[in-house]
Amino acid sequence: MKIALDAMGGDEAPLININGAIEALETSSDLEVFLVGDAPTVDSLVERSGYSGERLTVVHADGFVGMEEKPTDALRQKPNCSIAVCWKMMAGGEVEAIVSAGNTGGVIGAGLRTRLFLKGVKRPGIAVVLPTISGRSVLMDVGANPGARPEHLAQYALMGSIFAREILEIESPRVGLMNIGSEDGKGTPLIKEAHDLVLRGPVAQNYIGNVEGRGLYQGEADVIICDGFVGNVVLKVSEGMASMMMEKVAHQVLGALNGEKTTAEQAFGRVGRSFEYNEYGGAPLLGIDGVCMISHGSSDARSIRNALHTAMTFKNRNVNQHIVEALAAQTAASS
Amino acid sequence: MKIALDAMGGDEAPLININGAIEALETSSDLEVFLVGDAPTVDSLVERSGYSGERLTVVHADGFVGMEEKPTDALRQKPNCSIAVCWKMMAGGEVEAIVSAGNTGGVIGAGLRTRLFLKGVKRPGIAVVLPTISGRSVLMDVGANPGARPEHLAQYALMGSIFAREILEIESPRVGLMNIGSEDGKGTPLIKEAHDLVLRGPVAQNYIGNVEGRGLYQGEADVIICDGFVGNVVLKVSEGMASMMMEKVAHQVLGALNGEKTTAEQAFGRVGRSFEYNEYGGAPLLGIDGVCMISHGSSDARSIRNALHTAMTFKNRNVNQHIVEALAAQTAASS
Repeated sequence: MKIALDAMGGDEAPLININGAIEALETSSDLEVFLVGDAPTVDSLVERSGYSGERLTVVHADGFVGMEEKPTDALRQKPNCSIAVCWKMMAGGEVEAIVSAGNTGGVIGAGLRTRLFLKGVKRPGIAVVLPTISGRSVLMDVGANPGARPEHLAQYALMGSIFAREILEIESPRVGLMNIGSEDGKGTPLIKEAHDLVLRGPVAQNYIGNVEGRGLYQGEADVIICDGFVGNVVLKVSEGMASMMMEKVAHQVLGALNGEKTTAEQAFGRVGRSFEYNEYGGAPLLGIDGVCMISHGSSDARSIRNALHTAMTFKNRNVNQHIVEALAAQTAASS
Repeated sequence: MKIALDAMGGDEAPLININGAIEALETSSDLEVFLVGDAPTVDSLVERSGYSGERLTVVHADGFVGMEEKPTDALRQKPNCSIAVCWKMMAGGEVEAIVSAGNTGGVIGAGLRTRLFLKGVKRPGIAVVLPTISGRSVLMDVGANPGARPEHLAQYALMGSIFAREILEIESPRVGLMNIGSEDGKGTPLIKEAHDLVLRGPVAQNYIGNVEGRGLYQGEADVIICDGFVGNVVLKVSEGMASMMMEKVAHQVLGALNGEKTTAEQAFGRVGRSFEYNEYGGAPLLGIDGVCMISHGSSDARSIRNALHTAMTFKNRNVNQHIVEALAAQTAASS
């Protein structure tokens, strides 16, 4: 499988991408990675890494979308930046997947421009896997589509379910709608219409209805759908809260200890990293004709390696084919 | 000051309300509490409490809005339920404030029916105080107004600032707009319009612009405004996440300890309670002509006592008068 990796994406780019690619290549003999970025820089780092195989190719790109840049402006000013080249390679069939830890708005913006949507998909969305008290859940969308319409949310219910089934291996994922009350008839017009659409759609059987915010980390559903504004706020509030809590709790608890302080400190470090760690290496943009993994800006080489592996699993499990077939069946049933 | 307390509100009602009222009466000699609820039940509990003063009166109400009930239905079926009687007492001038730990939708629903809005206020909103890494911040609205319009958010910026200044005693509260990116021009049409209105409004000087979700618990602003849907989801996601994290972190850290395990366990208990504890006893519904404190369903007597005290401070600090004057000044300036 050929994957374009945005070498310039991430706070610690390009090094994490080069190391992550090499780690992934070592364990996957059918993987080929195209490192897209500033060729002189990336070439010299690859050389220094000592990698000598044939499955790592550097592709030159002019600049990249910086973390603090406004994506629309950056993409206009730098039409051949690293993420734009990645998408062009996928649109041209040169690669089957792309991975980027760069500016998320840039990844989405460059992607939506290619209009590389799966047949039947109205708007792609980002599906993120979050830890819960009992396991993990998928939250979708977390930012690709802040102005979602009801039919988009209904499609997220379907796409999120297929993702949860094929990648998280949850046989019949329970789907919930993020809402401000659990009873019927709650929420904004968007939410009420989405509720009705999901009830009449292909995941109706696994639909548990409204889920309040509290239910997300309590694992009340395997897939929770929301518009990209709400999902993005929830995801980022969670990050900020986790970091605040770890600091406050550690401070209080360590302050109470004497002899076993160091042991506790190490345990805090481990559990803190476990909250940050994402075994999938990133979040897929679901609904595109290809595979796009969006990794966190703070990714390390292991995250990038995991994102490359998830992209391979995504293809091997035929996630996109399942989505297209389910949407076609739905259209056929309702016509 | 006369306050109506919804005796039937809260998971542990009516006992927490009776005990909370008695605690508040002990420390505030100018307080008079009306316990609104099922008179036979409340009377006998008051009798058993041993309270012998003159400043606690039981007012009968027929039923209450249960935690799992649909507020609109319950309020129609039980027009003289405890929260409806509380609001009627405030509308009739019998009390100056109400406090309830009951069904939040019921408190809001009964309140909006009275149309007891402050002059110039378009829609009331709930302002909650949250802990941050560096102190505390106000998030508004967390559920009174899920379909907020831009002018509502602009008023929340003003009301939230006055609340933060008078009750949290932050001299010049920094105001932020919850958004999905920090740069200008981000977000939905609602958010963009609200941004423009706040920029041209009375808190422009203290407005720091967009704040991403991560900034909430990182204390980037003293007041963060959002629509009631987003705010409610954020608040409840936070509750669920705090509980999940405390459980997972405690499990990991305690599992690593031997001799000091009990000490650490106690420290976890203390810090866990500190996240649950709300020194204000609840969240005010800002923008009404009166004082309404909404307490959490899981409130204990101490929370109810604190809510009664906050209601008194709210009145003593003339929060409503400041709001009305600021809105009038704004109208005068723009006409």
